[in-house]
Amino acid sequence: MSTFFTEAASAEAVNARMGEQSDPRLREVMAALVRHLHAFAKEVQLTQREWEFAIDFLTRTGQLCSRERQEFILLSDTLGFSMLVDAINNRRPQSATENTVFGPFHVQGAPERAMGDCISLDGKGESCLFEGSVKDLEGNPVAGARIDVWCDNADGYYDVQQPAEQPRWNNRGIFTTGADGRYRFAGVKPVSYPIPHDGPVGQMLEQLGRHPWRPAHMHFLITAPGFQKVVTHTFVGDDAWLGSDAVFGVKERLIARYERVEGGETQWRSQFDFVLTPQ
Amino acid sequence: MSTFFTEAASAEAVNARMGEQSDPRLREVMAALVRHLHAFAKEVQLTQREWEFAIDFLTRTGQLCSRERQEFILLSDTLGFSMLVDAINNRRPQSATENTVFGPFHVQGAPERAMGDCISLDGKGESCLFEGSVKDLEGNPVAGARIDVWCDNADGYYDVQQPAEQPRWNNRGIFTTGADGRYRFAGVKPVSYPIPHDGPVGQMLEQLGRHPWRPAHMHFLITAPGFQKVVTHTFVGDDAWLGSDAVFGVKERLIARYERVEGGETQWRSQFDFVLTPQ
Ligand SMILES: [Fe+2]
Ligand SMILES: [Fe+2]
Repeated sequence: MSTFFTEAASAEAVNARMGEQSDPRLREVMAALVRHLHAFAKEVQLTQREWEFAIDFLTRTGQLCSRERQEFILLSDTLGFSMLVDAINNRRPQSATENTVFGPFHVQGAPERAMGDCISLDGKGESCLFEGSVKDLEGNPVAGARIDVWCDNADGYYDVQQPAEQPRWNNRGIFTTGADGRYRFAGVKPVSYPIPHDGPVGQMLEQLGRHPWRPAHMHFLITAPGFQKVVTHTFVGDDAWLGSDAVFGVKERLIARYERVEGGETQWRSQFDFVLTPQ
Repeated sequence: MSTFFTEAASAEAVNARMGEQSDPRLREVMAALVRHLHAFAKEVQLTQREWEFAIDFLTRTGQLCSRERQEFILLSDTLGFSMLVDAINNRRPQSATENTVFGPFHVQGAPERAMGDCISLDGKGESCLFEGSVKDLEGNPVAGARIDVWCDNADGYYDVQQPAEQPRWNNRGIFTTGADGRYRFAGVKPVSYPIPHDGPVGQMLEQLGRHPWRPAHMHFLITAPGFQKVVTHTFVGDDAWLGSDAVFGVKERLIARYERVEGGETQWRSQFDFVLTPQ
């Protein structure tokens, strides 16, 4: 009878109900979630109509999800929650390359390519050479690092968003470093693109006076034996959306140099060195 | 550039992005939500796997929703969030009848019945007479109060859950008080029932070591000109689940007396007086 609900002790009444046989970590996470959600409702004195709107918003968000679309990840991304979870789980020494948001467009099993190969298969866009090194914290080259890269095409779409218009594995590939730890591949200069914004998350951004754009970036997923996995992007430094990425992915040290190349085959050259943290 | 994301100022980076033209109340609510969600993740140091589980849980919760099933309301109910929002929006003088959770089983447009009529149409269950009065804070009878009542049948199901097995409007009706402010109707003694628990919310309850049962109750929705709407239940006082309602709806003063009636037509009699608050 002591656990009857009261407004003052609302979270305590809920959390007192959890069984002692349940998983301690689950209990810890749920108790904190209940406390913070209740504190939120109390702080803003949430109205019944706002609650009804929230129920409907969450329902529509779930119902838009499909194999090709994950609206709840978009919601997490646009509220900075994905970046926060990534930050909490990937604290690194100052000199190591930072993570950023994974995003929904990675595809497992991209083709393994030889160093120097080109990943752009649709012939669109401004050609760009990507090169640099993978090193450890002491500056030694890391051999055998697998570098999985992906980016959008010149129209701002990943291949999986346009299965009919783009060749399969367009702008994707996996490169493995040799003894010198260096990488080098050809592709196109990424362009900025809006996250899918024709659903509840897009409506939320519009109501909040926010835009759905992400500054241009190349995705990197780097794994090497004995080192922490790096999930990151390099950003194109002169992008108009660099200061207002819709998913808060930009970190100052992930902004890469893109230099114009005069008179050669490629129009741009982007150099970026990655520094891995031991496991 | 000052709004680049950092773990330390994660919520501030997100909230700084909201446009000044957006609705001030929306800004207030969203800024608080972001602050509390980020504080939650930081407090428990949420892992990537836990985040992935949450995304999947929310997605499944949305995808189970249909015209007949609202899993997000169940989630809100079982986390005590619905009761909290109700409490925040319906603070009343000490002597007034308290609200409790509305629940998903109310149906608009129940038949208007004459005082004394029976709402049970399926002939199942232990017969019960419900009677009492509707008064104002000074104890004067409230005439013209519409009393919309609904409860489950003897098998623990509302008519809308069993459209093929139960007569339409079984255990539902609307009664309007006369000058004496009194009400009186016949029906059956409600029985305890589990909330729908074959979905994500049921899995959550199980993992938390919680059961899905609600103690037996009769729903009342009372409206009268010049008074605040009352959405409440009266609970059957000897119910085994009274101390552990899955949705935290029980309040001490909503527990009603159910007395056995010897030798009459009805087996039980439940008396409860409602006190309305002026608008
Ligand atoms: Fe991307
Ligand atoms: Fe109910």
